[in-house]
Amino acid sequence: MALTLSTKAEAVKPSSTLAITAKAKEMRASGIDVVGFGAGEPDFNTPQNICDAAVRAIEAGFTKYTPASGTNELKAAISRKFKEFNGLDYAPNQIVVSNGGKHSLTNIFMAILNPGDEVIIPAPYWLSYPEMVKMADGVPVIVYATKETHYKVTAEQIEAACTEKTKAVIINSPSNPTGMIYSRQELSAIADVAVRKDIYVVSDEMYENLVYDGEEQVSIASLGPEIYERTITCSGFSKGYAMTGWRLGYTGSSKDIAKLMGAIQSHATSNPNSIAQKAAEEALNGPQDSVEMMRQKFDERRKYMYNRVKDFPHVDVVEPKGAFYVFVDLTDALTKTYHGHPLYDGAEVARFLIEDYAVAVIPCGDFGFPNNIRLSYAISNEDIAKGLDRIESFLKELK
Amino acid sequence: MALTLSTKAEAVKPSSTLAITAKAKEMRASGIDVVGFGAGEPDFNTPQNICDAAVRAIEAGFTKYTPASGTNELKAAISRKFKEFNGLDYAPNQIVVSNGGKHSLTNIFMAILNPGDEVIIPAPYWLSYPEMVKMADGVPVIVYATKETHYKVTAEQIEAACTEKTKAVIINSPSNPTGMIYSRQELSAIADVAVRKDIYVVSDEMYENLVYDGEEQVSIASLGPEIYERTITCSGFSKGYAMTGWRLGYTGSSKDIAKLMGAIQSHATSNPNSIAQKAAEEALNGPQDSVEMMRQKFDERRKYMYNRVKDFPHVDVVEPKGAFYVFVDLTDALTKTYHGHPLYDGAEVARFLIEDYAVAVIPCGDFGFPNNIRLSYAISNEDIAKGLDRIESFLKELK
Repeated sequence: MALTLSTKAEAVKPSSTLAITAKAKEMRASGIDVVGFGAGEPDFNTPQNICDAAVRAIEAGFTKYTPASGTNELKAAISRKFKEFNGLDYAPNQIVVSNGGKHSLTNIFMAILNPGDEVIIPAPYWLSYPEMVKMADGVPVIVYATKETHYKVTAEQIEAACTEKTKAVIINSPSNPTGMIYSRQELSAIADVAVRKDIYVVSDEMYENLVYDGEEQVSIASLGPEIYERTITCSGFSKGYAMTGWRLGYTGSSKDIAKLMGAIQSHATSNPNSIAQKAAEEALNGPQDSVEMMRQKFDERRKYMYNRVKDFPHVDVVEPKGAFYVFVDLTDALTKTYHGHPLYDGAEVARFLIEDYAVAVIPCGDFGFPNNIRLSYAISNEDIAKGLDRIESFLKELK
Repeated sequence: MALTLSTKAEAVKPSSTLAITAKAKEMRASGIDVVGFGAGEPDFNTPQNICDAAVRAIEAGFTKYTPASGTNELKAAISRKFKEFNGLDYAPNQIVVSNGGKHSLTNIFMAILNPGDEVIIPAPYWLSYPEMVKMADGVPVIVYATKETHYKVTAEQIEAACTEKTKAVIINSPSNPTGMIYSRQELSAIADVAVRKDIYVVSDEMYENLVYDGEEQVSIASLGPEIYERTITCSGFSKGYAMTGWRLGYTGSSKDIAKLMGAIQSHATSNPNSIAQKAAEEALNGPQDSVEMMRQKFDERRKYMYNRVKDFPHVDVVEPKGAFYVFVDLTDALTKTYHGHPLYDGAEVARFLIEDYAVAVIPCGDFGFPNNIRLSYAISNEDIAKGLDRIESFLKELK
C-alpha cells in the first residue's frame, strides 16, 4: 500500500483562531505595534492561590499518574461545584476530567456518535465544533441564527432541523463568538424539543463564570429529569479561572457516557496533567474573589467596547451579555470599497486591518458567519482603546 | 433517534494496567500491605532541576495557550535531542508535542489510517496499541513472537503478515511488556520489509533511556533515507525523566504527517500543559545525570529480579535488556493446581496472588500473551524482595 494519509484527517481545517493569534504574536515579536483582538484567553494571570497550590503539588512530588479520568479529590470538588453553581447532581463517577474543554468535547462526540449521525450546530458556532463532529464520523448540520434573535437559534429551528439521523444538538451559552446567553425560557423550549425528538444535548458552558448585567446563567440539564439524562454538560477552568495553559476541562453526564469517555481517554491520552489537577482543586475549593474581580474587569471593557463599536459607521452589533467577545456585523461595510478595493467578506476586512492598521481581528467565516468579525476584550483597556481607534479609522475610509 | 452510544467506543476495553494499579492503591489505602508489581512508572521523583523549571514557569505566568503542537523552544530542544541521542534529523516543523506518549500514538493513527487499513502489531504488545488502532478505524493484525526469538518478531513474520491493506507496523523497542531490545540487524531487516512493502513504521521508543548491559538503542528511522521517510518516531518524558504525571510525549515524522497531527490536535485538545512544556525543555537541555542515576538503580533491580525469578519453580524468563519489566512465562505453572484449583491463565494466577499473597502483578492477556505476567521493577528494592518472596511461596504451593 502506498504511503497515503487519513482522508478524514486531511479534511481537518487547522483552527484559524489559533493561527491568527500566532500571527499577531509573530508581528509583535518583529517589533510591530499590533493590537490583537483575537485573544481567546483572559489576559489575567492565573490567580495566586491556584499557582501556589500547583507549586505545592510539585514540591510534594504529585507528579505521577492519576486515575485516567481525574483524581477523586478533583471529581469531588467538581461534583460540589456542579451542585452549588449549576444546580446539577453529578456524582464523581459521572464526571470525566480531560485535557481542556476541547478534549472534553472530543471525548463526548467519540462516545455518542456512530458514522453518519447528525449533530445540530447553531451558527454562529465555535469553529472547532464541526471539525470535532467530523473527526468522530458525525455529520454537522448547521442551523443559522439571525441577528434579530440575537444570534440564538429557536427551539422551532432545532425541531425543523431534526431528521431520523439526528443524534445531538450543541448549545453554547454564553456563546463564543457572539457573547449571547440563552434564557431559561429559551432553554426550556429547546429541552422540550430534545426530549420529544429523543436526542442528546451537548451543553458547552465554558464561559459560565463570565455573565454580565445580572443575566441568569442556566444549565439546560437542570431543567428537569428528562433533559438531565440526555445532556452532557461541559465546562473547564480556562476562561473563568484564567487557566488556559493548564489544559483542564470536564464533563458531567450519565454514568454510561462517563464510563465510555473514561475508557476512550484511558487509551487515547490517559490522565490530564497531575499538577494542573491539584491547581484546579484549589480553583474550585479556594476563594472565588479573583473570578469576580476578572468578571468585573471584563464587564467594564465590554461596556466600553460595545458603546464605541455600536456608533461606528457601516457596522451593526448586538450587546453581548457574556464571555469576552463583541460580534460585529459588517454587512453594510461589505457593500462599500476600501481605497477602491471591494470587500468580499470579514476575512478581507481582517486582512486590510492587519496589513494597513496593525489590528488583528477574527474573521468569522469559520464560525459560520462570513460577514462578521469577532473582537475579544480579553486585552488591556489601553489596547482596546487604541485598537478601536484604528478600526474606526479604517471604517471611515470606506466609500 | 434513541439515545444510543458509539458502537466503536462501546468496544473499547478500558486499560487493565491502570485498573490493576488503581486496585493495589485502593487495597493499600485500606491498610493492606500490598506489594504492587503493576507500576508502569518510575518510583523516582521528577528530578529537582525539572521541578524547579516548572515552578519558575508558574511564577513567570507561563500559564497561557502555546502553539497547539508545542512551543518553538521545546521543539528546538527535541530536535537537538533527536539529532544527538537518536541520530535523527527532525526539524521543529516535523515535531508535534502531545499530552503524553498515548496521545502521540493516537494522533499518529488518526493521521495515517483510513477505515479498514491494517496495522501489524507484534505480540507481546503494549495493551493500548490495538485499542488505539481500532479507535482510528484501523484493523489490528497481531503477529506473535515466541520466547525462542526473545519475544521479538522477525522481518519474515512481518513480511508474511503484509496484505494489500497493510498500512503500518508498530515497533516498540525497548518493549513494554517484555523489556527486549531489537538489534540494529533485526531493525535493518524490518526496515527492508517496510520499504519493500511500502508501509509506515510507528516506532515507539518511550523507554529509550532505559537500556542495560551495554545494549545499543537504535532508532529504526536512522537506518537510511527510505526508512526515515516512512517512520514516525515516538517518545516522551514519562519513563526516562520520571515525568509520568506531567503528560508529555512527542513525535518526529515527515512534515506532512506532522501537519496533519497538528491540525487534529488543534481541535481535539489544543496545546499540552504549558508548564509541563517548560519542565520538558529543562529535562532535555539540563544536566542528564539524574537520568543515568535512575537507569543504574533500575539496572541493579533488574539483575536482582531476573536472577531470582529465573530460579523460581514452574516459570521461565528471558533476561530483559531494557525498560523496567520482567516478563514471566507461566506455561508450566498453568499445568499445575493451586490448592486444588486449576490455573487457566495468567489472570487466574494474578487473582490468587492478589487475594492470597497481597501481590499485584499484571496478567498479560491484554498484551496478547495470556500465559504470562509482567512484573515491574519500578518499585523499591525492599518491595521487590518482599514481593518476590510472596510469589515464590505461591509457586511452591503448586502441585
